[in-house]
Amino acid sequence: LHFSASVVRGSTMRVPSSETWTMPSIYFEDFAVGRVFELGSVTVTEESIIEFATQFDPQSFHVDPEAAVDSSFGGLIASGWQTGSLWMRLYADALLIDADSRGSQGIEEVRWRAPVRPDDTLTGTTTVVYAQPSSKDPTRGTVFIESAMTNQDGVVVMTMKSRGMFGRRAA
Amino acid sequence: LHFSASVVRGSTMRVPSSETWTMPSIYFEDFAVGRVFELGSVTVTEESIIEFATQFDPQSFHVDPEAAVDSSFGGLIASGWQTGSLWMRLYADALLIDADSRGSQGIEEVRWRAPVRPDDTLTGTTTVVYAQPSSKDPTRGTVFIESAMTNQDGVVVMTMKSRGMFGRRAA
Repeated sequence: LHFSASVVRGSTMRVPSSETWTMPSIYFEDFAVGRVFELGSVTVTEESIIEFATQFDPQSFHVDPEAAVDSSFGGLIASGWQTGSLWMRLYADALLIDADSRGSQGIEEVRWRAPVRPDDTLTGTTTVVYAQPSSKDPTRGTVFIESAMTNQDGVVVMTMKSRGMFGRRAA
Repeated sequence: LHFSASVVRGSTMRVPSSETWTMPSIYFEDFAVGRVFELGSVTVTEESIIEFATQFDPQSFHVDPEAAVDSSFGGLIASGWQTGSLWMRLYADALLIDADSRGSQGIEEVRWRAPVRPDDTLTGTTTVVYAQPSSKDPTRGTVFIESAMTNQDGVVVMTMKSRGMFGRRAA
C-alpha cells in the first residue's frame, strides 16, 4: 500500500458507495496482544502540506515556504494534525475497512517527534497492547494500540497511543 | 469568528502570503494559568464530513450517508480527526496567528464524547492549565492547555489536553 497525499482525493477510495461495503472479516478477537499491523506508506507533497494547513492549521511554517525558512523549523513542515490524519488513512485502508469498527473513544497520547517535510514518505505501524471486552455491551470490546509513523530515513516522526471499539465475533 | 467547514478552503485564510505576516503580539508570558480563550465556531456540513473522511478516514459511517444509517451511530458522523483539525483551525485563527508559536510536542489526551453530525455548529474553548519555561532554551516555554468543542445544543463533543511551545517576550 502506498499513495501520495496530494493525489489521494477520491481516486484511491476503495469504498465509494454503499453497494460495495462487504461483510467485515476482522473482529475484536483478532486483536491479539502484541500483534503488529504494517499499514503501508504515504508520500507527503508540498502541495498537500499547504492544502491541509490552509484548511486546518494556517501557521506560517505550514503554509508559506518562504516564511518557513525563517521559522525555528528552517523550512515548510506538515501540520501534526495532517500526520495524524494520514496515519488514520493508512490504518483505515489496511485494517478498518475490513473490520467491524464501532468508532473510537479517543487518544491517550500523541508525540510529534520530528518534522515532516515535503516529499517525506511515511510508513505506519500499529501494535496491539491491550484488548478489553465491554462490561456493558457483550457485542463489542475496546482495543488499545500503539502506533508510529516513520520516514524514509528511519526517523520516527510521530508516535501515538489510542483506542478503538470493535464488534465481537458472534458465538 | 464563525465559518463553515465546507467553504473554508482558501477563502477565509487570513494570511495568504509571506508579505502579510505581522510581528507576533502573543508570547509565552501571555498564557496565564486559568486564562480562557474563546475560539469562535464552525458549522460542519455533510459535504465537509464526506470530503474529509474520503481523504483521511473512509469508514462507512463517515463517507456513506445510507450505510451510516445501519451503523451503531444511526447516521453519518464526522471523523474524530476532522473535529480535532477544526479545533486546530479555530485555535490558529483566534490565537496562534498572532502568537510567536514554535509548534507543539504533542497531545496528552483526546476524548470524542458525542457524535458530530451534519450541520452541527461547534464552538471551541481553550484554557491554560500550566506554563513551563524551557530549561534548555531561555527564548521559549511550553504551555499546557485543556480544550473543548461544544455543539449547538450544549453537548461537549470533544475534549483535549495538549501543549504548545511559544517564544518568550524579550527582556
